[in-house]
Amino acid sequence: MKAFANTQVILNSRPHGVAQAENFSIVETRIAGLAPGNIRVKNQYLSVEPAMRGWIADKGNYSAQVEIGSVMRALAAGTVVESNNGQFSAGDRVMGWFGWQDYADVEPAAVIRTVCEDDLPLSLSLGVLGINGVTALLALTKIGAPKSGETVLVSTAAGAVGSAAGQIAKIFGCRTVGVTGGPEKAAICLDEYGYDAAIDYRNENMNDALERACPNGVNVYYDNTAGSISDRVMCHLALNARIIVCGTAAEPKWDPWPAGPRVERHLLVKRARMEGFVIFDYMDEFDAAAAKLADWVRSGELRYREDILDGIEACPDALAGLYRSENFGKRVIRLQD
Amino acid sequence: MKAFANTQVILNSRPHGVAQAENFSIVETRIAGLAPGNIRVKNQYLSVEPAMRGWIADKGNYSAQVEIGSVMRALAAGTVVESNNGQFSAGDRVMGWFGWQDYADVEPAAVIRTVCEDDLPLSLSLGVLGINGVTALLALTKIGAPKSGETVLVSTAAGAVGSAAGQIAKIFGCRTVGVTGGPEKAAICLDEYGYDAAIDYRNENMNDALERACPNGVNVYYDNTAGSISDRVMCHLALNARIIVCGTAAEPKWDPWPAGPRVERHLLVKRARMEGFVIFDYMDEFDAAAAKLADWVRSGELRYREDILDGIEACPDALAGLYRSENFGKRVIRLQD
Repeated sequence: MKAFANTQVILNSRPHGVAQAENFSIVETRIAGLAPGNIRVKNQYLSVEPAMRGWIADKGNYSAQVEIGSVMRALAAGTVVESNNGQFSAGDRVMGWFGWQDYADVEPAAVIRTVCEDDLPLSLSLGVLGINGVTALLALTKIGAPKSGETVLVSTAAGAVGSAAGQIAKIFGCRTVGVTGGPEKAAICLDEYGYDAAIDYRNENMNDALERACPNGVNVYYDNTAGSISDRVMCHLALNARIIVCGTAAEPKWDPWPAGPRVERHLLVKRARMEGFVIFDYMDEFDAAAAKLADWVRSGELRYREDILDGIEACPDALAGLYRSENFGKRVIRLQD
Repeated sequence: MKAFANTQVILNSRPHGVAQAENFSIVETRIAGLAPGNIRVKNQYLSVEPAMRGWIADKGNYSAQVEIGSVMRALAAGTVVESNNGQFSAGDRVMGWFGWQDYADVEPAAVIRTVCEDDLPLSLSLGVLGINGVTALLALTKIGAPKSGETVLVSTAAGAVGSAAGQIAKIFGCRTVGVTGGPEKAAICLDEYGYDAAIDYRNENMNDALERACPNGVNVYYDNTAGSISDRVMCHLALNARIIVCGTAAEPKWDPWPAGPRVERHLLVKRARMEGFVIFDYMDEFDAAAAKLADWVRSGELRYREDILDGIEACPDALAGLYRSENFGKRVIRLQD
């Protein structure tokens, strides 16, 4: 361990749309003494989320814009190596807002949770037991409220959030339909994530496929895309459908604001509800949700894939890669131990 | 009374978009004997609703398409003149699905309610105490759920549904903002319907006006338009806003399907909810709602305007006129007594 040297990924220019590798730089800094009350975390895994696009690019997002010249905001998982706070001890495994860097000196409020699933890989605390899995569970239950026997359709169905949403809906007794891009991901949806049907939006006629896969219409649409997939799904809603707006991966730029077919008539005719979900509104339920997800992982009911890139040098291009759909599962950066 | 002669307004061709006068014809027919179990209603007022556009034009609406050659489906209010049913007696004042015609021979299921507000004009049972007022009350409470002090914005604010929604929100202690077309309707919003602010979308810059009228954002958006007004309002939502999709008056045609700015990012960033409302899902609550509205009318808290056209000859052009925005208040056709 190189004491007091820290490698950090800095946002050095603001992209229009999705940040590319050239919008970041990697710098080496020296760590000062740890402030009273703070803890020092050695990061072991750094998270890469589609939502980072918005944290960087958009004004009027649900969180403040990442400032130029600052360490890239990110969730990370690691181990407390020094503590000036009675709540934490060296050796604690923690997950929280530690940024794209080797070491984070942070206030305790930056910690989202102490990772207590010692039998499971730490990286899962960023994915299926972290923001992705917890988002899937809480958005699905709070907005989707799926009933056994209903049809739940998930977009980005093989992704970190989508794959969890589909499997949780299955646990709840629903018919699950996954929309994903390419035959390989469609096969993963069926074989690994247990979807009852998978639709490859790149190679299938969406209307025909939706008709076949959802003969009674879509009761719950768990959407992470907000693009042309949604436009087709909206034509196949069942009466009283619930649409969870969880992400907008199909629309990397909101300036100029993208247009699409109006949703009002669908919502009216089908008495459907469309609602946005942001996990940060439910942080007090995070621990209980993660514990439930961990049980499903242990029982084999909830499967996951990880897309692990090695070394902090992988960070700058990692977000752009998500938008190139190159990952199969939750993307994390593994740092040297 | 011309016994056994009936004047009817027939849909004789299917329009593309809003039905015009030439899509209807007026015919005289003879009435047969009243079937067992049925009642005969002498219509006194015929209703004209924006929703008729959809009943005529759209497949996949919430109710079956009106067939070519049939009497135009319409709500009407009148008096039972003959009854073969123990539930009804000659002289009863009733409101229901009696169509654009002088006399309706109908099954009891066609009756929505027996009008018991003998102290109030019968025509109100089609407007402020009818489908419009009841829609406003139930959509506002069930989807909008406005809390005292919140800002409720209403489009078509001077219309039959909008004016009721605005006044009911005011009764509930909300700040009310009405969007309407033209200075005369804006003045009516302020002076008659007690809106705290009125926006004339034809003559004001919508963004500036919304900024001024809704400094804390829009908590509840009661929408009857689904067009460019909504596109602006969506940029001024408060956190956890509720959007009631009650009508689509700004989009008279849905073939080809109209496009607009995508709503997903607004819903996501503001954790807002957008939901369609159709009154026909709540018919079991109609009577109680109408009674509550009648009390507010009697107390002077709920004001209304009617736009009364005389004679069944006014029917064919009456719907097109709504879409020309020529009415100030609920449009009804008064038949000779």
